[in-house]
Amino acid sequence: MNAAPAIAPSPPSIDALLGLARADMAAVDALIRRNMDSPVPVIPALADHLIAGSAKRLRPMLTIGAARLAGAQGDGCLKLAAAVEFIHTATLLHDDVVDSSELRRGRVAAHLIWGAPASVLVGDFLFARAFELMVGAGSMPALEILARASRVISEGEVLQLTRAHDIDLTEDVYIEIIGAKTAELFAAAAEAGAVSAGATPERCRALRRFGQDLGLAFQLVDDALDYSGDAATLGKNPGDDFREGKVTLPLLLAMSRTGPAQRDFWVRAVDRREQVDGDLDHARQLMKDTRALDDTLALAVRYAGTAKAALEGFGGPWKPALQELADFAVTRRA
Amino acid sequence: MNAAPAIAPSPPSIDALLGLARADMAAVDALIRRNMDSPVPVIPALADHLIAGSAKRLRPMLTIGAARLAGAQGDGCLKLAAAVEFIHTATLLHDDVVDSSELRRGRVAAHLIWGAPASVLVGDFLFARAFELMVGAGSMPALEILARASRVISEGEVLQLTRAHDIDLTEDVYIEIIGAKTAELFAAAAEAGAVSAGATPERCRALRRFGQDLGLAFQLVDDALDYSGDAATLGKNPGDDFREGKVTLPLLLAMSRTGPAQRDFWVRAVDRREQVDGDLDHARQLMKDTRALDDTLALAVRYAGTAKAALEGFGGPWKPALQELADFAVTRRA
Repeated sequence: MNAAPAIAPSPPSIDALLGLARADMAAVDALIRRNMDSPVPVIPALADHLIAGSAKRLRPMLTIGAARLAGAQGDGCLKLAAAVEFIHTATLLHDDVVDSSELRRGRVAAHLIWGAPASVLVGDFLFARAFELMVGAGSMPALEILARASRVISEGEVLQLTRAHDIDLTEDVYIEIIGAKTAELFAAAAEAGAVSAGATPERCRALRRFGQDLGLAFQLVDDALDYSGDAATLGKNPGDDFREGKVTLPLLLAMSRTGPAQRDFWVRAVDRREQVDGDLDHARQLMKDTRALDDTLALAVRYAGTAKAALEGFGGPWKPALQELADFAVTRRA
Repeated sequence: MNAAPAIAPSPPSIDALLGLARADMAAVDALIRRNMDSPVPVIPALADHLIAGSAKRLRPMLTIGAARLAGAQGDGCLKLAAAVEFIHTATLLHDDVVDSSELRRGRVAAHLIWGAPASVLVGDFLFARAFELMVGAGSMPALEILARASRVISEGEVLQLTRAHDIDLTEDVYIEIIGAKTAELFAAAAEAGAVSAGATPERCRALRRFGQDLGLAFQLVDDALDYSGDAATLGKNPGDDFREGKVTLPLLLAMSRTGPAQRDFWVRAVDRREQVDGDLDHARQLMKDTRALDDTLALAVRYAGTAKAALEGFGGPWKPALQELADFAVTRRA
């Protein structure tokens, strides 16, 4: 017998997860549409601009996936999933105001169209609506998880704001920042889904851990893509973090590894943000020389691995689909 | 027998209410202090700047008053009261960013010290903390009332933002705006207190009505004071609304009553905000000529009256104390 011809394995994708979650996500989408409505016209217009963007709806899908993996039969997780997307969208609206970002999800940032005041207030609307949805879901433990997550996210954002340009930021503090501002919502999204399914505390903790480590992997890849991706695929301008002087892991690794010879460059470009043409390319070169991007991605792969391991005790079709999501998070190009 | 000498009645005050609520409000204050803490240093600093200002704590006192009037014996209302103050403080922080206000509660507005980004994010922190406190209080109905109120407030703010400079704004739309952005939190504060006390639906509705009409009276007096008050007493600059071209009831009454002769003045000063020295004085004179300020205060007095009437079915010491709060709202000078 001849050996089977070698077939290149297809890259990880979220297709399996999308297939399993199709009906649930259609229901979540309908809930999102219905609940972003308001008699005040600018609210649905602004919310729609962001929500109809190229959103992957990863976080609500995590709530659905965790609930179904944990055996949820009913619709209790749908409102929680919509609430999770509203919390996420509210933080994006406020983030873009805080960072003066120009692009979001492939579109002009909302505050550049409707103004920063409307973005702040519509963010507040979506945040409040999220809590109305959670009340509708009727689970006080899920409410507690998502209220706490909302608070931790804001703490992470403030911490990042106050430490953003610190060229001596340590890897530990950086992981603390992204743990709060990104991974906490992934963790809470999964945990709330598990709780709504009536899962055991042990399984709730496992799903929280899955979300947490998936979120860390996801953010680290985002940080790397900001130096290695291109605008058309990303839906935002690559190099934004560098131009804003925002210290992320690739940058802090490069800064700490290049030594005194480059210190003046980092102080000028990152701390004082006095940048000239070629600075971004120079930073990219230093990241290559110091393996800063490679090591950022390697750390992301490690977190994806611990995320997948957290699901060991589960079975059924949702398990491999969610584990593939972790692989997708670290191999995606956008 | 001689008639008793005529004694001038002392002006309405909140002293009776403060006396009754003293122990509860001390406990609420301790909850506020404890819950505005965070390992991220700028959060308690910024929150303290606003919360330690000359705040009257009217809204949390309304929660306490409604709960005690409705017969609450336990401490269930304390966390709700602290949550109400956090929601209020969060909206103030975002409002000041939205309006670019310079003074708040007699102090420099927080965004001028820590920047607009920190104000937006600390507002988010306080809002999330409010929901954590509500979860701690453990009443899903109270959570529903305050989540809905938070959403209605944001809708009122957006409506005001989009209609703020409309010189043809009608009284109806104006009452809708302040009903949402101000009176809704007064209404929800009182209703949540009543609900936490296990009051009957009828009594919950009565206390909601009390809060609603008190809030309308309160806001109308605020609007009048912006034209008649002085900076030292107010803790903010009088004339701010006019300078920002913000249409409030005194202004819209004056605009609608002065006819075509003044139309160019209103278009320039309010719609286009091209103001010169003397414009504020001219507007004040037109308000006097058209009785716009008098009629604004008269409407406030009517709402204070319906607020007091809503408490008819109650008894005990909290009833006259809360009714005097309604009288205080329309006679205060700051």
